[in-house]
This record gives sequence, C-alpha cells and structure tokens, in this order.
Amino acid sequence: MSRIIRFEHEGETQWGLWLEEGIRALPQGPYGDLTPSGPVIAQDAVRLLAPVQPRKLICVGLNYRLHAEEANMAIPEEPMIFMVSPEAVIGPDEVIQLDNAQDRIDYEAEIAIVIGTRCRNVAAADAASVVLGYSCANDVSNRVMQKKDGQFTRAKSFDTYKPVGPWIVPCKDPDTLAISLRQNGEVKQASTTGDMIFPTTKVIEFISSIMTLEPGDVIITGTPAGVGPMKSGDLIEVEIEGIGTLSNRVA
Amino acid sequence: MSRIIRFEHEGETQWGLWLEEGIRALPQGPYGDLTPSGPVIAQDAVRLLAPVQPRKLICVGLNYRLHAEEANMAIPEEPMIFMVSPEAVIGPDEVIQLDNAQDRIDYEAEIAIVIGTRCRNVAAADAASVVLGYSCANDVSNRVMQKKDGQFTRAKSFDTYKPVGPWIVPCKDPDTLAISLRQNGEVKQASTTGDMIFPTTKVIEFISSIMTLEPGDVIITGTPAGVGPMKSGDLIEVEIEGIGTLSNRVA
Repeated sequence: MSRIIRFEHEGETQWGLWLEEGIRALPQGPYGDLTPSGPVIAQDAVRLLAPVQPRKLICVGLNYRLHAEEANMAIPEEPMIFMVSPEAVIGPDEVIQLDNAQDRIDYEAEIAIVIGTRCRNVAAADAASVVLGYSCANDVSNRVMQKKDGQFTRAKSFDTYKPVGPWIVPCKDPDTLAISLRQNGEVKQASTTGDMIFPTTKVIEFISSIMTLEPGDVIITGTPAGVGPMKSGDLIEVEIEGIGTLSNRVA
Repeated sequence: MSRIIRFEHEGETQWGLWLEEGIRALPQGPYGDLTPSGPVIAQDAVRLLAPVQPRKLICVGLNYRLHAEEANMAIPEEPMIFMVSPEAVIGPDEVIQLDNAQDRIDYEAEIAIVIGTRCRNVAAADAASVVLGYSCANDVSNRVMQKKDGQFTRAKSFDTYKPVGPWIVPCKDPDTLAISLRQNGEVKQASTTGDMIFPTTKVIEFISSIMTLEPGDVIITGTPAGVGPMKSGDLIEVEIEGIGTLSNRVA
C-alpha cells in the first residue's frame, strides 16, 4: 500500500512514500511515476506536512443519511456543494486555532478525495481513474456563522480549519470504510462511508460536470452523525479504515 | 494610467502593459516592478487573455442596496461571502457557454479586486496597499440552481461563467465609479460602486480577517440592481468608469 506524504527533513520540503523500512523521496512529486529514489530516511527524522496543497477545496454538504437526520434536513436529491479557502489546510499534528472562540465550533470527520489528473465530465464508472488517493479530514465549522451567513464559506474557511492527512492512500473501495472521530480519546463519530448518500464516484461525476478539476484539488465528502463542539486543549483524531489517523490539537 | 494585461502574441503568453503607443511586456509578471521591457507590440497584433489566473475566487453577495431590495433580501450587517471555481474565469471576447440552458441564467456586472500582496488581517485603512488593481467582471449565475442548492457555488462555478477583464487598472478611489451593463447594446444595469453596502476596503478587511489572501486572488464585490437573463447569441458588455469595457458573447 502506497502512503504518499509531504514532509520536512533537514529544513527541506519534499514529497515521498512512507514505507515499512522508512521514508523515500518522490523527486517528481505525487502526480506521475511513484517510483521512489534516494536513501531511506528514518520515520522519526521527518515532520509530516499536509499531503495536499489544493488549488480548489470543494465540500459536499449533508452527505450522510444519519447526519442529515440529526441536522433536521431533507435527504438531498443531488450533491450540495460549496467551496472553502485552500489556505485553511493544515497537516497532521498542526494546531487548530479557534477564531471567535465564544462561538460553537464543531469537528466533522470526513474522507477527502485527492484528484490526480486534470479532468472534466468524468462518468462515475471512470471516476477512480482521476483519483490520486484518499485521506482523512476534519471540516472544522463555526456553527454561529454558518447559520448567520446561510453560505457556509466563512464558517469553514478560517486559516487552520481544514486539517488533512496524515497521507494519501489509494483505496480499492473508498465507499465501504469505517470512519470515526475521537475527542480526547472518546469516540464521538463512528460510521462507515457506506452511509454516504452520494458515494465518492458519484461526487466526482457531479462536480466534474460543473468545473474542471486539477491535480491536487481536494473534495471533502461530508460528515457522519455525531458532530459536536471543540474547546481549547482538545485532541481530535479522525480515523479511517485502511487510510490512517489524523491527529490535531485545538488552541 | 497602467493597464496590466495578459496576452498572447505569436503563440506565446505574456504579461504586459497596454500603453498609448502599443503593448510592452512585463517579463517579471504583474506583482513586482511594473517597468516594461522589450519592443513595442501593435495592439492589434495580440489577443487579450483574462488578466487574472486566481487561486481563490471569492464573491460578496447582496452588496448593493438596490439589488438587495430587488432580491427582497434584508440589508446584511456584514459582508456575506462564498467562493466559486477559479477555473470558471475567461477573458475579454471569450464565449460564455451556457450549461443547462433551459434554466434562467443571469448576467451580473461587478467590480473585481485583484490582490497584489500576500496578506492577512488587513485594516480597511491599509487595504489599498494589498491591491494590484481592479477589473470588470460578469458573475454569471444559474438562478434555478442557486435557489435549489441554497449554497451559491454550483450556480456560479460552471467553466466560462466568470468573464474578467479587459485589464487590471489601479484606481485611486474604486468606491465612486459608474458601473453599467449592456445586453445587445441596451443598458440593463446602471449604478455606481458608491451604492455598495460594504466598500472595497471593508470587503478586504473582512475577508482577510478570515483567510490569508495571495497575489492574484480575485474578489468580486456584488452586483447592482437590474440583473436579468441571457440567451444564446447575446453580447454582454460590463463597463466601469476609469477601468474599461469587458465584452463577451453567449453561446
């Protein structure tokens, strides 16, 4: 299983693969040949960075049946999309900085699709061919602003509000994976990507019918039931079966 | 007055200045020293391209008093923002391709702010210092999808739905300019940027309090009253005083 990472080592930022025996560099980056080169680097000698630097960060709202029910919303007939600032992305173990901390600010565990190929009008049956892989994401959301604005962009766009990581993993079937979130060790969300109203392939078909997608673009695909508020000092862990665990502290 | 352009000449894409005597190249691009170099190129020997290739394309909703009234919406207390696909941008004289042409798809004349400097938390009083200049934009909007989704991203993100141009111009006071839109020569929108509820400086203060802005990011700042539907074959012209006229055909 390839785990594509972006990492800092001896002051230099590189793409690479996280392998059993250690880390090896991908000098051509993640979008072409994934044959690593150079020496093996010890895993504890590097700092993992966000494995994405998206141009577009596209979100699907209300995509899990039980979360749509908990939010008292009708099951949508087609995906409902919005976009947030790509500058909000942070990596594993980076700190979520709460702005307007008097507001209710929630965690939301999500599976992230990372696009690997420039594409438009991709049929669901072909969607896997434009995907580089999948990662874990936390779609941090200011509920007061989300309700006030109607549009979700501000509530979800503050710098540091989109942790993604720890790596990008190709998945044979991204639509049957256990997904969970722990707050200070306590399980708060526990579901499966099989509860998604629109599976990842349908999401790619829908979004690519609207806009050209570029390598590195990220689509986060909605959150299961169990969302709740965070406070300063919390440790939030998003775990997805076959991908890994994304951990971030809140400040 | 500097008119910053991006253009194609003899198969090559370049940044440049549109001067009285012709066009001269900006080999360093538009974000640093604006001293042109190289020979003068005849204006009719080039094709103008969109003068922006934004990473982020941020929109302000309901920012003109009369348009808020025509849309039966309350005057907002603070700017309401959303984001659309940067891949939707096209340049002057490029064709707006209507998707889902059975839907009502409207024109919206807007003044576009082009960011020149990476920034965060910029006070309104300092906002001019982070701006490269201003341009004309048409915020093409599918009204059926806008209403259905609630979120505005899909309705306004189709490839070709964001004409911007013809060039970027620094303006001493962008908040007192006549702005108008003609459909096949008939004036449909005619207002002034002075009718904006939040002037450009306040918009920059607000958005930069949420997210880091990068050079080339574009903010489109809302449309005045008089929006209406377009049909195939229409010629749509957005004119802003002191900036210029952006013309696009609809197909």
